[in-house]
Amino acid sequence: MSITVTVMYPDTPGTKFDMDYYLQKHGPLVHKLWGPHGLTGLKVLKGLATPDPSTPPPYRIMALVGFESLDHFKAAVNAHGAEVMGDIANFTDAPPHIQINDDVA
Amino acid sequence: MSITVTVMYPDTPGTKFDMDYYLQKHGPLVHKLWGPHGLTGLKVLKGLATPDPSTPPPYRIMALVGFESLDHFKAAVNAHGAEVMGDIANFTDAPPHIQINDDVA
Repeated sequence: MSITVTVMYPDTPGTKFDMDYYLQKHGPLVHKLWGPHGLTGLKVLKGLATPDPSTPPPYRIMALVGFESLDHFKAAVNAHGAEVMGDIANFTDAPPHIQINDDVA
Repeated sequence: MSITVTVMYPDTPGTKFDMDYYLQKHGPLVHKLWGPHGLTGLKVLKGLATPDPSTPPPYRIMALVGFESLDHFKAAVNAHGAEVMGDIANFTDAPPHIQINDDVA
């Protein structure tokens, strides 16, 4: 079964997020390092709003990182996880919430 | 620009989530009511794990609901939002966190 890793960057007050670096450097790094390890796609969502106009979106960015299988993801992390995770400090000081999910529908 | 609405169902202790109802009734309802209003897809992710083995996934289910544009989504909500949102109580007593996002990559 294919999986999607959701990498959710909280919009914590007082923290920074360098969108240019994220899109121009981090995304290509993920493709380069994990492309050969079963990466099926990297989709980037940018928080706009919630249904309640007085509540801002909790996440600035939600990345949807697809892999062919959980085993592919584990192998990708073993091979290059430190480089990918280590790059996060280059664009934000608000660590992401990460969840691994089965693609059920 | 296309958008994705992320509908995240928190795994709150003591609450229920009827996965059969969700997949067999709620998903088809969304397609039926919002399909004619610019719905581009409904992807369902089921939380498996986090990178920390001692931390369970915060969300049981994350639904990724795609629309052609923010205006399409607003029109879809105006037309049938009450029916779609009203159906949620039929499968869970833990209300979802909902965020509207631009598809930036």
